[in-house]
Amino acid sequence: MNNWYFDQLRDLYSAETQLIVALPDMAANATDQELREAFNHHLDETRTQRARLMEIFETHGINGEGEDCDAMRGLVKEANKHVTNTAPGSVRDAVLIASANRVEHYEIAAYGVARAFAQCLGHDEDARLLTKSLEEEANADDTLTKIASGGIFSTGVNEAAAH
Amino acid sequence: MNNWYFDQLRDLYSAETQLIVALPDMAANATDQELREAFNHHLDETRTQRARLMEIFETHGINGEGEDCDAMRGLVKEANKHVTNTAPGSVRDAVLIASANRVEHYEIAAYGVARAFAQCLGHDEDARLLTKSLEEEANADDTLTKIASGGIFSTGVNEAAAH
Repeated sequence: MNNWYFDQLRDLYSAETQLIVALPDMAANATDQELREAFNHHLDETRTQRARLMEIFETHGINGEGEDCDAMRGLVKEANKHVTNTAPGSVRDAVLIASANRVEHYEIAAYGVARAFAQCLGHDEDARLLTKSLEEEANADDTLTKIASGGIFSTGVNEAAAH
Repeated sequence: MNNWYFDQLRDLYSAETQLIVALPDMAANATDQELREAFNHHLDETRTQRARLMEIFETHGINGEGEDCDAMRGLVKEANKHVTNTAPGSVRDAVLIASANRVEHYEIAAYGVARAFAQCLGHDEDARLLTKSLEEEANADDTLTKIASGGIFSTGVNEAAAH
């Protein structure tokens, strides 16, 4: 089971590493200022999340490299395809959020599973670190959804894209 | 915006179609009886969800084919890789659930986005159908997590895999 737990972490490490490459492009392609800032803020968080995974690898004396997260590769490929097919503006922003919501949910599931494995194996400090990242991913997803749907003071990216 | 909305639906249609192929294998590879039943039950739901998408395509007189969901292709590829590397039993079951949680979260995000687009565009009947599928995906995710973590009457697949 420990081996499978470490594979889950390596998968996440690969996913975060791919995301660190993809997020600056997503920020650069966003027109809405709030969306761009959300992507940049999440880039900082993603770097911290990867550092947490490295900390866990060090604790257990294992190598974090060697997994290639196929799912994140697919998610990023799909996001790029959608961006290429839109002009800058609110539709592209709506499509960027659609892709980013998928990415965040992938990570929510992956961190949820990794934490459950950590708890089962009695790796309490790992579970604490993974919980931090899990909470950040859930917050990032909420932030994106709010930018898409708008609030009291704004109409939201989706509404703008629809008109 | 309508075009992007339809692309989101086509992406989901491709995802569900891929899942209809993948779920019978996941069920066949599961050892835990409850897990196998959950996969088979979700296969039925997935067929209904694809039928709902076809209904929406018919309403709008458009073709639902033509998108290939790269993200689902990656998710299924990753799931297959993990299954191939484990022997039947509780560890494989835990790993199957780990993959299936990711698939469900992908779909939760995708249906959430599609419904938000439908609401913005005033496609109320579409939004109603998409809500049904969204709720089923969330329930499927909960069911899998419960099988992994156990409850009052069972220790759960993760606990079994850890020992």
